Amino acid sequence: MLIRELSENESLTLLTGLRLGRLACAKGAQPYITPFYFVPSSNYLYSFGTVGQRIEWMRENPLVCVEADRIVSPQEWMSVIILGHFEEMPDTEEWRQQRAMTHELLQGRPMWWEPGYAKTIVHGTERPMDPIYFRIQIAEITGRRGIPDSAEVT
Amino acid sequence: MLIRELSENESLTLLTGLRLGRLACAKGAQPYITPFYFVPSSNYLYSFGTVGQRIEWMRENPLVCVEADRIVSPQEWMSVIILGHFEEMPDTEEWRQQRAMTHELLQGRPMWWEPGYAKTIVHGTERPMDPIYFRIQIAEITGRRGIPDSAEVT
Repeated sequence: MLIRELSENESLTLLTGLRLGRLACAKGAQPYITPFYFVPSSNYLYSFGTVGQRIEWMRENPLVCVEADRIVSPQEWMSVIILGHFEEMPDTEEWRQQRAMTHELLQGRPMWWEPGYAKTIVHGTERPMDPIYFRIQIAEITGRRGIPDSAEVT
Repeated sequence: MLIRELSENESLTLLTGLRLGRLACAKGAQPYITPFYFVPSSNYLYSFGTVGQRIEWMRENPLVCVEADRIVSPQEWMSVIILGHFEEMPDTEEWRQQRAMTHELLQGRPMWWEPGYAKTIVHGTERPMDPIYFRIQIAEITGRRGIPDSAEVT
């Protein structure tokens, strides 16, 4: 297998077809990852979730990283890594249009309200279900691709 | 769909069957994620890679987070999140036995040396291929499970 870098354009093209990724935030020196669903549009990833550790940490420190990939096998895969900036879209007049657009974008996927908006039971109590709309501004995107030996061309 | 917490034992059991995860480290306030292959054994995840941004950041700040999951559908999934501590296993007498054990453990999986040990071409030049053996000490493990409505029991 060879591992090759993708160009920025190739990385953005790969991203267009992806909806599931992993989002990392950090509090002090401690990073934290959760799976998340998103919809990419121009220079942003749109998503939402319920209030919890992830949202609270990103409010304090908006620097995040997103990884998303398409893995066929350990030898054949593509992966993008995004360094970005968390932006909350609060329920105010200023953000009304962006929130409506996010709602529209996220409705396009099956069961769009899950898992972020699912009825989550933690320690036996239901958590509040107010959705937090947010977007990740893409500051930098890089990508890599694993190419099986059989597919190599010189 | 309901989302339920897994117990520590359930989380560890899920982890036993997983080999692919995402590893987050952080430099200052900036988190960074990469996919990684690992083998869990007692309280550690054993893995290796080549020198690069990830290894350099973990040497500076050993606090990491690992996420691994089994996703059947957006409604049916299990996910574990580990807060842990990076430990390098250098090529010294002290670590000889642990490195041999790691080599043994990692050989058990198909193509164990990839992608960490693959011939990586970045900016047209081959990167050094010295493997860095490391392990993540599990400080805390939590898990969640999405259960489709059809499978719900009261």
